[in-house]
Amino acid sequence: MTLTVSETDAAVHKLADRARRASRVLARANRDWKDKALRAIAASIDANRAGIIAANAKDLEAGKANGTSAAMLDRLKLDDPRIDSLISALHELAGLPDPVGRVVRGETLPNGLRMRQVNVPMGVIGTIYEARPNVTVDIAGLSLKSGNAVLLRGGSAALNSNLALVGFIRDALDSVSLPRDLVISVDEYGREGADAMMGARGKIDVLIPRGGRELIQRVVTTAKVPVIETGEGNVHIYLDESADLEMATDILLNAKTQRPSVCNTVETLLIHQNAAAAAGVLQALSAAGVTLHAEERAAALVPEITMVPAGEDDWANEYLDLDLAVKVVDDMDQAFEHIRAYSTGHTEAIITSSLRNSERFVSEIDSAAVIVNASTRFTDGGQLGLGAEVGISTQKMHARGPMGLAELTTTKWIVQGDGHIRK
Amino acid sequence: MTLTVSETDAAVHKLADRARRASRVLARANRDWKDKALRAIAASIDANRAGIIAANAKDLEAGKANGTSAAMLDRLKLDDPRIDSLISALHELAGLPDPVGRVVRGETLPNGLRMRQVNVPMGVIGTIYEARPNVTVDIAGLSLKSGNAVLLRGGSAALNSNLALVGFIRDALDSVSLPRDLVISVDEYGREGADAMMGARGKIDVLIPRGGRELIQRVVTTAKVPVIETGEGNVHIYLDESADLEMATDILLNAKTQRPSVCNTVETLLIHQNAAAAAGVLQALSAAGVTLHAEERAAALVPEITMVPAGEDDWANEYLDLDLAVKVVDDMDQAFEHIRAYSTGHTEAIITSSLRNSERFVSEIDSAAVIVNASTRFTDGGQLGLGAEVGISTQKMHARGPMGLAELTTTKWIVQGDGHIRK
Repeated sequence: MTLTVSETDAAVHKLADRARRASRVLARANRDWKDKALRAIAASIDANRAGIIAANAKDLEAGKANGTSAAMLDRLKLDDPRIDSLISALHELAGLPDPVGRVVRGETLPNGLRMRQVNVPMGVIGTIYEARPNVTVDIAGLSLKSGNAVLLRGGSAALNSNLALVGFIRDALDSVSLPRDLVISVDEYGREGADAMMGARGKIDVLIPRGGRELIQRVVTTAKVPVIETGEGNVHIYLDESADLEMATDILLNAKTQRPSVCNTVETLLIHQNAAAAAGVLQALSAAGVTLHAEERAAALVPEITMVPAGEDDWANEYLDLDLAVKVVDDMDQAFEHIRAYSTGHTEAIITSSLRNSERFVSEIDSAAVIVNASTRFTDGGQLGLGAEVGISTQKMHARGPMGLAELTTTKWIVQGDGHIRK
Repeated sequence: MTLTVSETDAAVHKLADRARRASRVLARANRDWKDKALRAIAASIDANRAGIIAANAKDLEAGKANGTSAAMLDRLKLDDPRIDSLISALHELAGLPDPVGRVVRGETLPNGLRMRQVNVPMGVIGTIYEARPNVTVDIAGLSLKSGNAVLLRGGSAALNSNLALVGFIRDALDSVSLPRDLVISVDEYGREGADAMMGARGKIDVLIPRGGRELIQRVVTTAKVPVIETGEGNVHIYLDESADLEMATDILLNAKTQRPSVCNTVETLLIHQNAAAAAGVLQALSAAGVTLHAEERAAALVPEITMVPAGEDDWANEYLDLDLAVKVVDDMDQAFEHIRAYSTGHTEAIITSSLRNSERFVSEIDSAAVIVNASTRFTDGGQLGLGAEVGISTQKMHARGPMGLAELTTTKWIVQGDGHIRK
């Protein structure tokens, strides 16, 4: 399609209006109905595996022809095991409590006026993400369970996969008498469709970008619609003077090597200059295949290990790989300074046996999650018992840290009187 | 001062960094200390009345010379009774519980990992407001109590008043050993200072504009920093078929005439075509001096009252005066349609004796506050028992409706283990 910017805006805003009308029906649907829809979506995806995989094959082929990287192609790929996990995630979502209708607080005021604040759906959610067709199903399910309609912009590299998935999701909604327009793709409008979403203030209630740094920064700085910023994690562990070697080794190995490609993996290790555990921890990391990017003092701790000299870039970098920046600090204050300069406010951890130092760390580090003597990998909605995870917010407004279904709702004050007037 | 845009940005961002450093000290201050500071500010303002009133006189004089309207001059004015109320508000704030440190939720997970989510200060708040020096003291007090540093941009019309107040506030902070930089004015940078604040992503955690529609819309659509939108209230009351005349009259008179200049006053009355109370209510409003802007069917209800014909503008307009738009609807669905088209999502009320209609209204109207059989004037932090009111949010993210001190905080996840790693 070749539309002008204002034509695209108008078309996307019209889709948002359709989503809004659909959302009003969903807002009144009870949990049973919503769970039935989630199971119908799961069944529809299951019944249409062949079609989904065929559509995905077109995207993969086009990707290969374009010279897309192997990592990107892997993220783009849908096969039977991946479809299985999409289906089981939908069933798990159906098993979670309804975030809508919960009374946050309630009181009868001295004048007899009854007031309560209740969780209600946001209305229309927008998501902008990149070439991951699994996010399409994931976000559609989360939005549905939280009572919201959703506009999806999934990236042209996954166009065929997304259109197939959205089609089957909409069929499933229709089969349980919910409006198809609860899930709408704006993919046919390309990048301009994403821009139109970002400008749709009053039509889209919240935008959640999911993807790499560049995408998220573009949305955060461009959008006029409120945004929840997610994902970037330049995560630090501070190895205190008093840290136990075995505990420190276990935690570092887990935090760096269990799944290095995710946002809660550790990226920088700060070592107190007198930490007895330092050499042992670095040896264990190196033996586990981690490349250590070290400043001079850190490199000198274990001269027999070959380390890469660390520069300014290493402190700011999210490797998302088997790489770790390492720095020796004089004391905890220097660690704080470093963290304040480079952290993205996602997760920071301390390994210590000092009560005083653990308390100082918890109180002075201003990140979404602050961890004492445990792996940074625990900053995760599933691990922390939130049920489904929408993302990990690195901003302070609305939601901070792992976000569950409740974070996709807002509140409404309901005030009931009997002719009450204000004196 | 004549600075380039980038010089102003750099200067304001440096001030934000100073506020950030100061905020770290305040984040660790306990309630006693913060309350002591609030009382010291009250005492400092009390002791410096003459200086404050003299500074304010300069602003008033300049305003008169510029042809500022009488209403604006009135808002700008500080005199002894107004200073008294600033002082008593600070003492009231000192009497409120501390929003910081409250455990929002906490659990020990099956693996023994202890986690809790705790309210912590945002860090640095920015406010942009217009020619109301009382807001300077108000926001400084609210920020302090919630553990935040604040950057203030108060409008050049109140420059002298604000600089005097900020000076006395900073002296008071110093007198209780808190950093002066907890409260910083950027007024000397003029309008460009406000722009620099709006662009200070990562340096200012949240921006709260206070003022008229134009100011708020400019901030909301320009800022790259997260914003809480406040204040606009195009408030509707729906007079149901079954409404009781006496109750309806009491509520309408209160909602329209008690304080017509504020955001929770009613602006449009929607009348069910068969509402028996309609004529009586309109007569009472007219007798109370309210100008009725009516569409044809509404005007025909009481031919003996002179009404102004209503047009499209009247439905969208926030009069903030003794004016009321009036429209007859065929049924509640038509009322819903009208409200959805014109409401700013602040407050909507129904007057009814039908349980079914009250429940439909509460469930289908998507506004921050939905009221049954009571005045819309109750949408107010003080009335709803929140203590101090920061503003009334008309957005869905972070805070919706009246905001108290808790809405100036965020949360932090604190996770404590004993060498826990993720399986």
